[in-house]
Amino acid sequence: MPTETIDRLGSELEAEAARVCAEVDSFFARLLTPTGDSRERLYEAMRHAAIGGGKRLRPLLTVAASRLFAIDPARALRVGCAIEAIHVYSLIHDDLPCMDDAELRRGKLTVHKAFGEAEAVLGGDSLHALAFEILAHPATHEDPWVRSDLVLELARAAGPSGMAGGQMMDLAAEGRQLDISAITRLQQLKTGALIEYSVEAACIMNKLPAEARTPYRGYARNIGLAFQIADDLIDHSGDEAAAGKPTGRDAHAGKATFVSLLGADRARQQAGLLVTQAIEHLGDHGPEADLLRAIARFAIERDR
Amino acid sequence: MPTETIDRLGSELEAEAARVCAEVDSFFARLLTPTGDSRERLYEAMRHAAIGGGKRLRPLLTVAASRLFAIDPARALRVGCAIEAIHVYSLIHDDLPCMDDAELRRGKLTVHKAFGEAEAVLGGDSLHALAFEILAHPATHEDPWVRSDLVLELARAAGPSGMAGGQMMDLAAEGRQLDISAITRLQQLKTGALIEYSVEAACIMNKLPAEARTPYRGYARNIGLAFQIADDLIDHSGDEAAAGKPTGRDAHAGKATFVSLLGADRARQQAGLLVTQAIEHLGDHGPEADLLRAIARFAIERDR
Repeated sequence: MPTETIDRLGSELEAEAARVCAEVDSFFARLLTPTGDSRERLYEAMRHAAIGGGKRLRPLLTVAASRLFAIDPARALRVGCAIEAIHVYSLIHDDLPCMDDAELRRGKLTVHKAFGEAEAVLGGDSLHALAFEILAHPATHEDPWVRSDLVLELARAAGPSGMAGGQMMDLAAEGRQLDISAITRLQQLKTGALIEYSVEAACIMNKLPAEARTPYRGYARNIGLAFQIADDLIDHSGDEAAAGKPTGRDAHAGKATFVSLLGADRARQQAGLLVTQAIEHLGDHGPEADLLRAIARFAIERDR
Repeated sequence: MPTETIDRLGSELEAEAARVCAEVDSFFARLLTPTGDSRERLYEAMRHAAIGGGKRLRPLLTVAASRLFAIDPARALRVGCAIEAIHVYSLIHDDLPCMDDAELRRGKLTVHKAFGEAEAVLGGDSLHALAFEILAHPATHEDPWVRSDLVLELARAAGPSGMAGGQMMDLAAEGRQLDISAITRLQQLKTGALIEYSVEAACIMNKLPAEARTPYRGYARNIGLAFQIADDLIDHSGDEAAAGKPTGRDAHAGKATFVSLLGADRARQQAGLLVTQAIEHLGDHGPEADLLRAIARFAIERDR
């Protein structure tokens, strides 16, 4: 691809990512308005976690994948916000003292540090429920089949067969040496399932049957792993200020990562291969897939 | 009502309650089968919490309300199990050290005592997601509108406008003196919303529009409060062995309850009034409402 095309796609991605970040913030600001009663602190905790921060990769993926099928961007964004609500709840719970015991997240105090542990548990639980409330609301899609299927697949991606199951694998891995296939499986559940769903959601809104979603899920699976390897590389050698959280934690915790198993060079190479494969999955699509292609390349070209 | 009718209803309730308990256990045993990988401990933690124990009031209510509309009992039970999954997740999280710090639940160790805190957080989160997976699955109802509406209303009942919001109110109430209207509001969110949904779910399966659900929600709201008052009375004067958990905790924590505000006698009277009103909401219904009537009376005649 000529350099000017890559540059154009890069700046289009930058603009679209900034737009999605602003829209996600404004969605959560509307959703989490003050209650004027003793639940106020719960809403504050949710706003703290959900507004202002993060790459918003998941909503961006849903918005980008929706372009493939010319789906109303406002609806794609709503669905993206439901996915982000799940992602944010998982970060809040993951940061708890009994899990990763983290102090910083997205450059701010974690919810339990800023509000207390009980508020962090309840804030996460509340965002978890809100995600399904958003999806099942008629404003998300006029077809109840689509709404119901969006819920079904998100619940699978978030639950014990997906993200929560991956978290458990991660816990169980402490002090053990995982091999590359065990780490891949762990990451596919822990972060991959939700990233895959972010793209699949656009297919569901387009009423594609499950079997026709395969290449899109393949794209998402590849970039999910590429992002994870890039995260490991940042943790391995990265800059704390840019990352917005302490780095070097994995090595310190003795956790096996793609980088510890493959070495930085081979890990970087592997990520590049995954991105190439991801783009191949988009096959015959024309310019309507450009944003997805740009996201794939961004996966390995970022430093945070 | 003649004594023999009350006796017949009482023993019918007992039989139906036992059947629902057995069916809920068997549903969760099938749902939470061993995974054969490192998520096994997560599934064990969920089985520990979800199988064998509790009155299963919520599934029983859904099954009983479904009789009003001659809904397939197997489907009502599925929906009841989704509600119970939410209830069980909330108990697991509520028992955490940063919340109620409880050691016993339903006569067994709490999940964090038996498996660890991280497992309790993830086990609760997993059951939360599974509840929505159950509801959105085509096996729950052939009409996607029904599935989508079941999800929407459960998410509202479980989230910050419902149960999780009520938990926050409860946290915020520590060390403050609530009045009777604040306590009623707190309980209507904390436990009432899910109990109300247990009855409303049958209305949704019967495709009743929201406005036609009012009397059934009224029934549920009344018995929800009656159950809460009965719980407070048990905590106030009850038997730990029968309750399956320590009693006297509310008084010890200095928490205002219906009993501390009204005194035991007036609280008991108030519960009786709520039960009468609950039964009145069932109005013209004939024998198909007998089970709901029996549950209402049971609310205040139990000792655990």
